[in-house]
Amino acid sequence: MNGKFIVIEGLEGAGKSTAMNAVVEALRAHHIDDITRTREPGGTVLAEKMRALVKEEHAGEKLQDMTELLLMYAARVQLVETVIKPALAAGLWVVGDRHDLSSQAYQGGGRQIAAETLMNLKHTTLGDFKPDLTLYLDIDPRVGLERARGRGELDRIEKMDISFFERTRQRYQELAQQDSSIVTINADQDIAAVAHDIKVALNTWLSKQ
Amino acid sequence: MNGKFIVIEGLEGAGKSTAMNAVVEALRAHHIDDITRTREPGGTVLAEKMRALVKEEHAGEKLQDMTELLLMYAARVQLVETVIKPALAAGLWVVGDRHDLSSQAYQGGGRQIAAETLMNLKHTTLGDFKPDLTLYLDIDPRVGLERARGRGELDRIEKMDISFFERTRQRYQELAQQDSSIVTINADQDIAAVAHDIKVALNTWLSKQ
Repeated sequence: MNGKFIVIEGLEGAGKSTAMNAVVEALRAHHIDDITRTREPGGTVLAEKMRALVKEEHAGEKLQDMTELLLMYAARVQLVETVIKPALAAGLWVVGDRHDLSSQAYQGGGRQIAAETLMNLKHTTLGDFKPDLTLYLDIDPRVGLERARGRGELDRIEKMDISFFERTRQRYQELAQQDSSIVTINADQDIAAVAHDIKVALNTWLSKQ
Repeated sequence: MNGKFIVIEGLEGAGKSTAMNAVVEALRAHHIDDITRTREPGGTVLAEKMRALVKEEHAGEKLQDMTELLLMYAARVQLVETVIKPALAAGLWVVGDRHDLSSQAYQGGGRQIAAETLMNLKHTTLGDFKPDLTLYLDIDPRVGLERARGRGELDRIEKMDISFFERTRQRYQELAQQDSSIVTINADQDIAAVAHDIKVALNTWLSKQ
């Protein structure tokens, strides 16, 4: 039997790492132990090099929005074909820190690249491949960025204006409403309450499989 | 007045460097002196990093064909937006060592990625942008690879099977027949004859501008 692909999504500081652990714990409680963790952009040696290109500061040369988007998809395709699809085919479950919804939200909402462009690129590169379940951690960007700042230096994308993150959150919320495979978790709560809600959502979903 | 964008295309060992010089000489003979040279993939600090990713060997991890294609377009968009369009807008002429036709030929013909996929990606990322003139150096891949080998070590792509280059050449030839802005030059000839034909083709084209 094929494994399932579960993705954690959300803004900086939404608590994705804690959520990843909560998901893995909940799966283990259901005796699902063969789990691969991934992160995007990145997750393979080559995809991590592409991640470095989109994350770093580039003295004197602006990374074009479309270049950024293409690098995100280059890294995603590499991860999907090299790691995720083979794992699923071997019966492993995959728990991902971000996937395609991040591009829809950040590059579509945040950078305001046309939704049609994004859909074309998604379809051209990934076809019908998509996660079985996405847990979207919804957080006020001011709260999330404050948490992220507490962890240290911010990267190129995390230094964007607050309005960038507000547009990103809005797109996340819109897409979550349109797609029944995306479950929204209130991540403004304290960390224990978020982990609890994640486990409830995951158990509800598992009971329907 | 906007400058013009002239591109040299062809297989490894077709003589693109010599052709670049012949084009620049011919333009100077017409008192066109403000010329920017580019190469693809690459041509900016960031795009050269993407070039390195597609050219190098990757021990233990295969670069997926679609990842390669997306990296080519990421590098191309970065070069077009950062260098080529600003140069043309400033009235400079741009002479490019490879451009989009290479992806059509290598990734489409060589790697056999569907033409529809390539056209989608081209349109999504570059819109209607295209060279004013392309000089395609047509050469038997056996002759070209022999010349390239004489120059030293071959990179990841240049190590492909001969049938890869035969498919690439065939796609080049097909596309050249369909597009009147592509002029085919017989590059099986000796270097002086090729340079002569390039100048004739360029002068013919310039006389119509």
